[in-house]
Amino acid sequence: MGRWEPDARGRMVLAALELYGERGFEQTTALEVAQRAGVTERTFFRYFADKREVLFEGSKGLQEAVVHAIAAAPDQLAPFAVVGSAMERAAAYLEGNREYSRRRAAVIAANSSLHERELLKLATLAGAVAEALRRRGVAPLPASLAAEAGVTVFKVGFDAWISDEATGDFTECIRVALDQLKGLTAGA
Amino acid sequence: MGRWEPDARGRMVLAALELYGERGFEQTTALEVAQRAGVTERTFFRYFADKREVLFEGSKGLQEAVVHAIAAAPDQLAPFAVVGSAMERAAAYLEGNREYSRRRAAVIAANSSLHERELLKLATLAGAVAEALRRRGVAPLPASLAAEAGVTVFKVGFDAWISDEATGDFTECIRVALDQLKGLTAGA
Repeated sequence: MGRWEPDARGRMVLAALELYGERGFEQTTALEVAQRAGVTERTFFRYFADKREVLFEGSKGLQEAVVHAIAAAPDQLAPFAVVGSAMERAAAYLEGNREYSRRRAAVIAANSSLHERELLKLATLAGAVAEALRRRGVAPLPASLAAEAGVTVFKVGFDAWISDEATGDFTECIRVALDQLKGLTAGA
Repeated sequence: MGRWEPDARGRMVLAALELYGERGFEQTTALEVAQRAGVTERTFFRYFADKREVLFEGSKGLQEAVVHAIAAAPDQLAPFAVVGSAMERAAAYLEGNREYSRRRAAVIAANSSLHERELLKLATLAGAVAEALRRRGVAPLPASLAAEAGVTVFKVGFDAWISDEATGDFTECIRVALDQLKGLTAGA
């Protein structure tokens, strides 16, 4: 085989994760990520707008899966049940990638600029969920609340899934978080 | 009266809001904000780490009010009820500042770098709420869920309060959002 290899995108993502983990995000350039992945800097910027985006390349696919699950949910399902099942779909989307998800979360937690970008992606996801609910006829205020609560369940379930004490897969962690949130709001 | 005026901080905040609104955040320098407020650039940086922070100078006081409300809540109150009353306290903290809050929100919505910083401040608030709940003996998972749900109520209530269709004050908007969230999760 020659120098060309498939999946340049995947190699850049892994190279970024390695370098940001080893040296820190601020201390790594896009050129260094490109070099470790065996591509040119120009190729890097054809795939990613900046060196933060390389860690968020799964966001779009995840959001599409969630929005599709909401649109495809049975008509009679209540808004929060729709969001709950969409978050289980999101978990299924990431289910096989626990080790990658753990390493990525550690790199993001270590840098506030990456943390801000992560929060913006989650806020964008919540906005897309709210819009998908409004397209089902849910009013704006409950649509926003159900969407934000759903993303909260996703975040808290994610943290439980990647923790050292995790006892189940991501879908189970989402179900536990959903049930706990229902119990908390019911008990208030 | 001479050139010296009290409340340099307040003048810098208003100057930033004006300039970011007129010219855009990216097109405005810290020096320009300082000049409009009648202070030196050096004074600006004695108060604020960067030109984003000038729009977030209320975050710390808000967070302290919320954390104090959680610590002071009656022992027998359920976690989500504790968070709900703390969010009403947060609303009371901002109640008199609707016009400022509207203008600030418009400036933040227009710039993704400011939006990211706003999300980081809200995530920091959620972290502080979760910690305050854990200090009351709430387990980590429900503490995180109740904290994130509380900040969601704050955000959604805030948007309702500053909207053109607002019908009540901030505290009322928080109560409506709390009730709707309870109804949504109970109905799922």
